Amino acid sequence: MSQDATANVSRKKDLKALFEPQTIAVVGSSRRPDAVGHAILRNLLSTGYKGKLYPVNPKADEILGVKCCQTVADIPGLIDLAIFIIPSAGVPAELEACARKGAKAAIIISAGFREIGAEGLKLENEVRRIADQYGISVLGPNCLGLINNDPAFSMNASFAGTIPNPGNVAFVSQSGALGTALLDYAHGKNIGFSKFVSLGNKVGVTELEVLSYLKDDPKTGVIIMYLEDIVKGYEFIEMAREITGEIAKTKPILVIKSGRTSEGAKAASSHTGSMMGSDKVYDAVFTQSGVMRMDSALEMFGLATVFANQPLLKGNRIAIVTNAGGPGIMATDACVRAGLKMAEMSPLTVAKLKEKLPPTSNFSNPIDIIGDAQHDRYEHALRTVIAEPNVDGVLVLLTPQAMTEAEATARVIVDLDKESDKTIVTCFMGHADVEAGVKVLREHNIPHYHFPEEAAEALVAVDRYQQWLNRPRTGVKHYECDRDRANRAIQGAAKAGRKFLPINESMEVFSAYNFPVIPWAFVQTQEDALESAARIGFPVVMKVVSQQIVHKVDVGGVRLNLNSAEDVKAAFRDIMAVGDRLKAKVDGVFMQRMAPKGREVILGMKRDPHFGPILMFGLGGIYVEALKDVTFRLAPIRELSAHNMVRDIRAIKLLEGVRGEPRADFAAMEDCLKRLSQLACDLPEIDEIDINPLMVYAEGKGAGVIDARIILK
Amino acid sequence: MSQDATANVSRKKDLKALFEPQTIAVVGSSRRPDAVGHAILRNLLSTGYKGKLYPVNPKADEILGVKCCQTVADIPGLIDLAIFIIPSAGVPAELEACARKGAKAAIIISAGFREIGAEGLKLENEVRRIADQYGISVLGPNCLGLINNDPAFSMNASFAGTIPNPGNVAFVSQSGALGTALLDYAHGKNIGFSKFVSLGNKVGVTELEVLSYLKDDPKTGVIIMYLEDIVKGYEFIEMAREITGEIAKTKPILVIKSGRTSEGAKAASSHTGSMMGSDKVYDAVFTQSGVMRMDSALEMFGLATVFANQPLLKGNRIAIVTNAGGPGIMATDACVRAGLKMAEMSPLTVAKLKEKLPPTSNFSNPIDIIGDAQHDRYEHALRTVIAEPNVDGVLVLLTPQAMTEAEATARVIVDLDKESDKTIVTCFMGHADVEAGVKVLREHNIPHYHFPEEAAEALVAVDRYQQWLNRPRTGVKHYECDRDRANRAIQGAAKAGRKFLPINESMEVFSAYNFPVIPWAFVQTQEDALESAARIGFPVVMKVVSQQIVHKVDVGGVRLNLNSAEDVKAAFRDIMAVGDRLKAKVDGVFMQRMAPKGREVILGMKRDPHFGPILMFGLGGIYVEALKDVTFRLAPIRELSAHNMVRDIRAIKLLEGVRGEPRADFAAMEDCLKRLSQLACDLPEIDEIDINPLMVYAEGKGAGVIDARIILK
Repeated sequence: MSQDATANVSRKKDLKALFEPQTIAVVGSSRRPDAVGHAILRNLLSTGYKGKLYPVNPKADEILGVKCCQTVADIPGLIDLAIFIIPSAGVPAELEACARKGAKAAIIISAGFREIGAEGLKLENEVRRIADQYGISVLGPNCLGLINNDPAFSMNASFAGTIPNPGNVAFVSQSGALGTALLDYAHGKNIGFSKFVSLGNKVGVTELEVLSYLKDDPKTGVIIMYLEDIVKGYEFIEMAREITGEIAKTKPILVIKSGRTSEGAKAASSHTGSMMGSDKVYDAVFTQSGVMRMDSALEMFGLATVFANQPLLKGNRIAIVTNAGGPGIMATDACVRAGLKMAEMSPLTVAKLKEKLPPTSNFSNPIDIIGDAQHDRYEHALRTVIAEPNVDGVLVLLTPQAMTEAEATARVIVDLDKESDKTIVTCFMGHADVEAGVKVLREHNIPHYHFPEEAAEALVAVDRYQQWLNRPRTGVKHYECDRDRANRAIQGAAKAGRKFLPINESMEVFSAYNFPVIPWAFVQTQEDALESAARIGFPVVMKVVSQQIVHKVDVGGVRLNLNSAEDVKAAFRDIMAVGDRLKAKVDGVFMQRMAPKGREVILGMKRDPHFGPILMFGLGGIYVEALKDVTFRLAPIRELSAHNMVRDIRAIKLLEGVRGEPRADFAAMEDCLKRLSQLACDLPEIDEIDINPLMVYAEGKGAGVIDARIILK
Repeated sequence: MSQDATANVSRKKDLKALFEPQTIAVVGSSRRPDAVGHAILRNLLSTGYKGKLYPVNPKADEILGVKCCQTVADIPGLIDLAIFIIPSAGVPAELEACARKGAKAAIIISAGFREIGAEGLKLENEVRRIADQYGISVLGPNCLGLINNDPAFSMNASFAGTIPNPGNVAFVSQSGALGTALLDYAHGKNIGFSKFVSLGNKVGVTELEVLSYLKDDPKTGVIIMYLEDIVKGYEFIEMAREITGEIAKTKPILVIKSGRTSEGAKAASSHTGSMMGSDKVYDAVFTQSGVMRMDSALEMFGLATVFANQPLLKGNRIAIVTNAGGPGIMATDACVRAGLKMAEMSPLTVAKLKEKLPPTSNFSNPIDIIGDAQHDRYEHALRTVIAEPNVDGVLVLLTPQAMTEAEATARVIVDLDKESDKTIVTCFMGHADVEAGVKVLREHNIPHYHFPEEAAEALVAVDRYQQWLNRPRTGVKHYECDRDRANRAIQGAAKAGRKFLPINESMEVFSAYNFPVIPWAFVQTQEDALESAARIGFPVVMKVVSQQIVHKVDVGGVRLNLNSAEDVKAAFRDIMAVGDRLKAKVDGVFMQRMAPKGREVILGMKRDPHFGPILMFGLGGIYVEALKDVTFRLAPIRELSAHNMVRDIRAIKLLEGVRGEPRADFAAMEDCLKRLSQLACDLPEIDEIDINPLMVYAEGKGAGVIDARIILK
């Protein structure tokens, strides 16, 4: 923990120079108005950057009225941040020059690095080396730059054409072009930003460092991100989890993660591996960190607006006020489908509504104040509904009809919003006829959507985030285990050059971690077999253990339901004979008490180079193959994650019990998942695990590992 | 068939007067500029209605320069269409007056009918009576009116504030206010309409009549609808199916059906009934008719644009041309996720691209022509890609960067589109920076979307519709059955006052319809039992049949696996003893050959007052309860529907065979579904049917009805 803390502190210190520099060198400032090196300087000047600015250009005396330095060395005194807009080949040398001038941060706008191939990659590695040597936080290369809208700095160190309005949304983009386009789009919607960060090739500063800075940024209330990958899965979870749910002023994080379909499930020898597409792993990362994954930029900005400007829902009861039935039904559909409740109006509220609304109004929710409603009727209805204790959030719908006053109604909403601590979203449908009203709403940062479904989705997201905040906090459970015993089994296999642990060795590992294993033995003689059978108790199962026999059942290498010493004797003899017949070396015989029938589930683990161990849970047997009804989490999992995993599957009812079946032992399944999590973290030599099936019995009756496979790296 | 044809002809003739009147009376024309009766007249005049127009107002000589008639009777000559904007109470009398003037159609704008309660409903019924008596097609009441943009009529008989541009989209809305809002919205997007119809309370003209008219309307290429209900499910299917796939110039239909969540599953005594929420029935209706169900108005207009202006995809291979990587990935994700393919560029195309694109471009799909691409580079890339034979559709992405020429690039696209017969959609991301380009695209009806996901969805929809057109055409299979035998079983139960058919009577019905029933018998004496056992073959199952015994298994009323005459004798004695013990009247004993184990599926039927018999198919056993993995269709089903039903379920793999299991007998399941469809249509006395399970065996081995229940009305 203390090491982590240090790392965080130094990480933050570095980023101070990046986001809050007192002195900036713009290396590659240009006089040509169409050059990027001109645009950056222009943006810094036009937005009124508060610190000292040194354009560097060997051939210019001044640019845009600012005196130029011919070289970095000519800059008087030290610099905090250097911005590079020079051909990539020159960047390493200039970066080193800036380092000697004390630069603690750099923004490399220049392209021509990894993205152009081997030569660029070499340059990029050189940049990394220099950055590491001097302790410089490098943003980019190949990026659009960085904007800090904090009035204490007013730093637009980007060449984005749009100057974003100030606001409390921080926008982090791994694509510069998308950043440009979305800043322009957001400007049209009057969405304001606290920071904009273009990550580029992420040679130094990644989403992790940026999140770490934004966590404590008082100007940022919402974080939106476009990411194409995440460099460190579990660190991302820990950081994002803190931001979304643990710090004093929590901040929602909305992410578009693209590349959803670019990678198929990787070839893998376990069920877990074959089920695990990279996209499902990202889903797990976001689930565990409280990050909301967005399907599109439209959705992301739609939700950013409500999170940036409205209080969270205190409950999930929504009131809809509308001047038309159809859109009211559409909004109701969208709310109810997503799990929100239609608020019930108390008799007092209905009476109050009736005072000023026409009798043909609909006084139960959705409240239809009829097509000829003007601003005063909206005002009465909204004021009344906001005051109703059963209402947590309000969706105001307006369609343009003959008597409709879009602008005046918008002003009514703006005023009521000031007094209200409930979540309010609006939907003025149409275009020209509602334009003036929409303008007023946008100017006053009232969340507005063109369609009722979008407005409903905004409320749904707020509710979902509130649920994340309200969730019980749990830790990672630690179990006392015989790690040495597990290691011995693994080392034994490794030494013998085997990657697959046979069932007896796998059971050693699970036994060492105190999984509920069905009593078992590994025997090599008939005497052992008889003794073991007596110890573990009848009936027993016997299986051949041989590296050369794959399909054990097909060759007669498995014998079930052995009820006596006689049975065991005969089975042992038969199984050994199978080896002789197939000319296969038989290592021994695995014996296990015949387990009673229960419900089969599968638990798995697969280690990923970027994300570490990933856990899987699903229904076993034919379900895992036919339905792919499985869920993933990154290890280590907290207790809540184990709880949620077993409830995440679609066929949860099969575990809850249908047709009078008892409920399955959820605690036992969760316990196994938590043990598996610890095992995966403790034993890095293991690459994949399938426990298939774990047989689960009725509540209180536990579970048992029936079959399993462990694959080493 | 000939009767139907007559109905259609008369329906169309009526609607001619509604859509194409030569003479219109506007009953309730008003001088007050803010009155609806003024707005309608103004709209008719300002859009240049080509026929004769008679405002009717007892107190005005002329309105808007048109001479008024004091009463309807004063109108010289006959009228085709009457429009009413008078208080509802006066409508019936005036409607009758118009009928006497030869009116064949009426638009009742006035509200104050069913929607205000009992009194209004009375008026509405009166209107219906008059309409029926005189054969008048009544649109409304309580509607916004009707617009026919055909230049031969130029009739805007609505009080909508927006005058829609001409185009080939017909828009039918069951909500007037939503109609207003969406016409306004569409105007902002430059979407043009052929017709606009506000359905209102649907006293006479419903979606069916309107569809029937639009089917043959040469000016309409796409139909979009907002519906809150459908009056006749199967007629809708037949009509919509013709429009979307059978006529010479097919027209896609896009529908928002709201009220998705308002009704829960109805209380029902069958599985089928309890699974069947009204919304699933609508899904079935749309699936069977090729109608595309929309999630929102945003989606509906987005797709209407592409259907209205672009050729359909000839295949599903898409090329993406972009000046930025991020959006390219987002679009690729959306396309691939929905089942489209990324087109492969042939070496020739790549070589051609390389001629004029910078070497850092990405020449494989998505084709990234790099951030500094200007209109000429877009032109070269697009021209080349459109010429590539492996490409069926093109998605053009543009983000605003320093060198980007949004407007010139838009003109390039407009020009290329003229020569191309491939589907082209565009996405210019941003706001102000791309505005000029978007304007050009919209003016030339090139489908444009703000976000790559929307553009991809448009292509997906086009592909989906093309698949609908390409589907094999099938008919409804007719089986020779012993309908009398089935009827005897039903009548017997009905006469005895029973609603539930016991298993023996149910089996009579299924046997009469030649379902694959496992050999069975119903016996009342020990002798019969022994004889029947010998006939149907051992082993047998015996079950008590008694109206007073519900849980047969619990009381010992079911005996399995009886292997000999002795067993049967004992079982018969025991089962009869159960009756004595419980003092329950035992009607007899049901015997059946013990069926071998197979895969269990469920087939069901429930009759709906609006939709007729609805069929269900799903996996049986615990699946139907735990997973609700079922699908619905309205009967009668065509052969293709039966084929699709059994493949519609999520757990299809269980039927295809996992873990070396053989594939199930799909033909047998489809055959049973088609028989069930015919049975449901033949025997209207039956309200619900569950066949649960139908035991299905390996391909070629058939299936067997194991248990079933039939419930009468």
